[in-house]
Order: sequence, then C-alpha cells, then structure tokens
Amino acid sequence: MGKMIGHHALIRFVEDVFVSMGCPPAQAQTGARALVSADLRGIDSHGVARLSGYIRLWEAKRVNAIPDIAIVHETPSTAVVDGDAGLGLVVAPYAMDIAIEKASKVGTGWVSVSNSNHFGIAGFHAMRALEQDMVGIVMTNASALVAPTFSKERMLGTNPICVAVPSGDEPPFIADMATTTAANGKLEMLQRKQLEAPEGWIQDKDGNAIKDAHALKNGGALLPLGGNREQGSHKGYALGSIVDIFSAVLSGANFGPWVPPFPAYVPMPENQPGKGIGHFFGAMRIDAFRKSEDFKRDMDLWIRRFRNAAPISPDQPVLVPGDPERMTEKERMANGIPLLDVVWEDLLTIAEKFNIKF
Amino acid sequence: MGKMIGHHALIRFVEDVFVSMGCPPAQAQTGARALVSADLRGIDSHGVARLSGYIRLWEAKRVNAIPDIAIVHETPSTAVVDGDAGLGLVVAPYAMDIAIEKASKVGTGWVSVSNSNHFGIAGFHAMRALEQDMVGIVMTNASALVAPTFSKERMLGTNPICVAVPSGDEPPFIADMATTTAANGKLEMLQRKQLEAPEGWIQDKDGNAIKDAHALKNGGALLPLGGNREQGSHKGYALGSIVDIFSAVLSGANFGPWVPPFPAYVPMPENQPGKGIGHFFGAMRIDAFRKSEDFKRDMDLWIRRFRNAAPISPDQPVLVPGDPERMTEKERMANGIPLLDVVWEDLLTIAEKFNIKF
Repeated sequence: MGKMIGHHALIRFVEDVFVSMGCPPAQAQTGARALVSADLRGIDSHGVARLSGYIRLWEAKRVNAIPDIAIVHETPSTAVVDGDAGLGLVVAPYAMDIAIEKASKVGTGWVSVSNSNHFGIAGFHAMRALEQDMVGIVMTNASALVAPTFSKERMLGTNPICVAVPSGDEPPFIADMATTTAANGKLEMLQRKQLEAPEGWIQDKDGNAIKDAHALKNGGALLPLGGNREQGSHKGYALGSIVDIFSAVLSGANFGPWVPPFPAYVPMPENQPGKGIGHFFGAMRIDAFRKSEDFKRDMDLWIRRFRNAAPISPDQPVLVPGDPERMTEKERMANGIPLLDVVWEDLLTIAEKFNIKF
Repeated sequence: MGKMIGHHALIRFVEDVFVSMGCPPAQAQTGARALVSADLRGIDSHGVARLSGYIRLWEAKRVNAIPDIAIVHETPSTAVVDGDAGLGLVVAPYAMDIAIEKASKVGTGWVSVSNSNHFGIAGFHAMRALEQDMVGIVMTNASALVAPTFSKERMLGTNPICVAVPSGDEPPFIADMATTTAANGKLEMLQRKQLEAPEGWIQDKDGNAIKDAHALKNGGALLPLGGNREQGSHKGYALGSIVDIFSAVLSGANFGPWVPPFPAYVPMPENQPGKGIGHFFGAMRIDAFRKSEDFKRDMDLWIRRFRNAAPISPDQPVLVPGDPERMTEKERMANGIPLLDVVWEDLLTIAEKFNIKF
C-alpha cells in the first residue's frame, strides 16, 4: 500500500508544478522546499497531500502565482507585509527574511502579514532563524474550525505557534503545535481508519463533547487545547486568539470567522474585514541578549536535563520538543517519503494536467 | 467568615511593610500596587496571602530590599536586566519600562531578566503597556512543580504567559494564564475545601493520573495544559518550556529544576546554573504595525464578534480573555477585597512585627 519517493524528486516535482502555474523559479523552489518539509517531518496532512488544493485555489484566482509582495509599513524592528494573494509557501519565507534582517540590525524583527494563503508548516519558516543564531517564532491563523470555550460556533482556526531555539551540540528545540487539542490532520487520520476520536478533541453542533471523528461535517467543532473548561480549554482558546490577533489584527488580514477557507469550493465568508489570511513572524538574535556561547552552553544543559528527566516508564523516555519530527526527517531523508495511494494518484493527475514528467 | 478591606488601605499597608524592609519609597509603592492587583483581580493566591512569604525570603537574605537593578547587555530592541535579587514586584516594572521605552524608539522592546524573585501576577506588568498603546507580553519561570509529558519528575514551574492587547471602545484583551491545566492556587483552594481535583490536573509520584488534591505533598506533580499525551499535554509542556527558555536561558537565570523555591524554608537546588529566577517582557507599539485607529477598530470588532459567538447555553455567554478578572476588579474596587481569616491574621502579625498601624 502506498509508494515511497525520495525527497529530492518530490521537491523537484512540486517546483515544476509551481513553475507551470507561473511562479518565478526562485519562489517555486522555496515554496516546494517549504511544502515537502512537512512530508519529511511527518506532518503528512500539510505536505504534498495538499498540492491539489493549492492548485485549485490558483485556478479559482484566489492564489496569485506572480505576487508583488511588499512592505506596507515598517519601523526598525517591525514591518507589515502585504502578500498580494501569493502562495503562503512563498510569502512566508519573504516575511521571515525581513524579520531576520531587522533582527540582525536592531536585535529583533517582527513581521505581521496580510493578504496571504496557507503557508505549510510553521516549523519550516521558524527554523530558518536557527541558521542565523536566532530564535524563530511563527504563527498563522486559518479558517474557523474551533469553538471557543462555552461556544458552539466555529470561530478560530487551529492557529499554530512554532518557536525554534538554537542550541550548541544538541539538536535545536523546535515546538510546532496547533493551539487545539489535536490538529485537523490527526482527525483526518482517524476518519480514514474509521476510528473514534479521544475525549476532548471535538464537540457536536450543539456543543456536546463527542467522539465521532466525522462531527465536523455535521456542524461540530474542534476544541481548544484543554478540551473543556475544567481542564483549561479557556487557555487554548486564549492562545488561538493571540495567534489570530498577532497574525491578522496587527496586519489587516481577516480574523476569526472571516478567514478564507482552504478548499476552493467553500464560499468566502461575507463582509470580510481584511485581506486574505494572516501570519506573524519573529526573529530574536541570541547575542542581542547574551554571548552566543553562553546561551548555547545553557541551552544544551536545558535539553540534556529535560531529556534525562525521570521517565514514568523506562520504555518511553522524556522527549524534547522537536525530537519526534527530527527522527522522522532523518529516517525519511534516508529511506524516502511514504505516500498514500490516494496522494500518489493525485500527484499523477497533477503531473498529467501540467504535462510534467514524474 | 473573613474580612473586607478597601484596596487603597491594603496597598498602603503593603507599601508601609516594604518601606519597613528598607525598600526605597517609590519602589515600595510600585511593588505594593503590583501585589494587591492580584487581590483586586481575583487571583487571591498571588496577592497579600503571599506577603509573609516575601518577608521570609527577605529575612533569609534571598530578597534584597535595596537592589541595584541594572542593564547588563542591550541592543536597540533588547536588554538583559540583572535584578540584583530584588523583589520581583519591583524588578518587573523596571524591566517592563525598558521594554516600553525601546518600543517607543524602534517599534518593539524585549527584556529578559535574571536574578529576580516572584513578581506577583503577570497581568499587572503586561497591562502597563496598554497605557502606551502597546501590546504587552510577560512571562516568568517559577520553581519546579510540573512534570513534562512521559515524566514523573518535577521539571517546570507553572510558568505563566500574559498577553495584553489594546482596544478602542471595548475593554482590552488580557490573557493571563499558567501553562498548566490549573494554577497551583486553584489546587490550594480545593485543598482548603477538602475537595478532589478534576482529571488532568495532577499525577502521583509514579506518574499515575489521580484526583488527590494533596498529591504534591507526596511527590506528585502538576500537569502541563492538556493533562495527558492524548489530549495534548506535550503542547502545555512545550509552552512551559518556551517560557523557561525565554525567561532564563536568554537571561542567565536558573531554569528547569534549578529555579529557587518560593518558600524560604525549602533548600535551594544544588549546582544552580544561573542567578535567581527569570522573567521575560515584551512591548510592541501597535502603530509600529498599523495606524492605531485602524487597529483599534478591528480589535473592537474582534472582541464584539467573539463575545457574541453562539453560546452552548444561554446562561453562559462566551467570554473574551480578561472578562472575568475585569468584572472581579470592578466589584472589588467598589465593595472591597475579601480576605480569608487566615490571611487577615497573617497581616495583623506582620503589622505587629513592623509596628505598622493597620
């Protein structure tokens, strides 16, 4: 079942698709690397499984393949970028580069982005800061699937936060997470396997906690991290809200229930207050705080101490954020990326449509 | 049962206590306002109930009443501050002012603090940014009570995050939360009432989920937001870790299991890698991103839309982060602050010790 494919071939294919859509070659390459980084790191829901979705957005004229991405406002440490409806996969690296450049000059850089589209995994963009000895911080809003505490209405996206922190000899700390109990991709996996969802993941259209993994199709909603009020869902709701505000209210993008949906066939929300979806990028130079070697020595100590924390079971050591994705990436770089048959068929259809060898 | 006391009288009393300890009068006043803001906002565990704890730290020479708080490293948008073992209640406003000043010059300001002590509630410090039309961001680490996912060892504090966002006609958005399922103060309330803790709050010394609210006394641990792996505790663990790293690895304070305990009678951890506890402060000028009036118009729309999200029950409308604390503050400003008898007796003992009229 399924196919294995090398990541170089997969990146090259996505790059060819983006070029066929009209993307400038350099942007096509960056965008392809961003997309396939999700497959490499094991976040299969955000990788090439979504390629046909991006193409449909482009066909629906909601994605602009040759965007004029521009800074519309800035200070020494901040900028607002208008993505001109470009692929988020392309707009995000552009904005992250601005954050990094500002950080190199004044210590930190913070960029809020409007008029963009889905950018793949936050981790890819945050990790670009690591190469510059900077902390990378990335957030994005997304179309509303999540009900706030006490609400039965979908008001927020799964709104992820990624923080990537440089280290010395140890691999870096990379926390990349939806602000919901579980990302939508996890739910899709359960749907495919006809399994129930655990408690605290979803509610039905009336706000009752349920385990039906298909509840979103019937007006249900994902739940904020915490799951219910007693277990802290108001904190997950607050975190998702902060992501929404930093990504969209700071930039002039759409927020809350007005964020454009990813599936091109879903109609746009009415009376949108802003443009496209919003992202937020931050870069902090570690030597803007301490000598780089002192920071890295302490960060290595932090990582080793947490990895060696007493485990509940000897079979499951304590992990440091980023460990599972790094292990998957190493394995898939060596052995290839496994694609479901349905995704493989999808890519073949795309190859045929654009007349690309695959 | 209990006493009611006006907040002006309570602030004045705390100020007199701090002056008696040797604090400079201006610092005593700021520190007193910071401490009592917890009582006003209903976070009783962090207010004057802790005053005797601060005094014991001062008596144990772990709090310096006349600290030489200083910037030890800076760039246009960043600084590291050494709190010289001062009261966190005094060090934090000093550091937040630096963040605000840097933001007024270059758009944002970010200050990591070492060698400090407990600073009360994060919300008080973050809200100072609101007066300047800035977003305020505040974090602090704390002594280890929380076990990472898969661990039975206490490695992190309840490590709160506060984000305060200015608005126009609506009251501001203020999310102030521990990165655990429940703050330790909530557990203390259950202990006093002899009630069980809900699922997902605590585990015993072997890592089993339990409901005994007294489990921390027997080697148990609080749980990260999410409660268990299936419900996302690895995300709460990651959030608490980010707070720890920004507050302490960036500044050179103690982190993880090495953070000094609040009770003066608990011995200091051995082989500490840094100085005191750590905090992190951020200020972002909203007009460094967009015109202030545009931001405030959209933020008001955000707040109203979320407050009007369809409720599950008509009896419990959807709240915006900050609503409960603001309602409590309004009520307590008008009618006084209720103090438990045990807290009242504690304050009388302090008054006698320092020969202060109360």
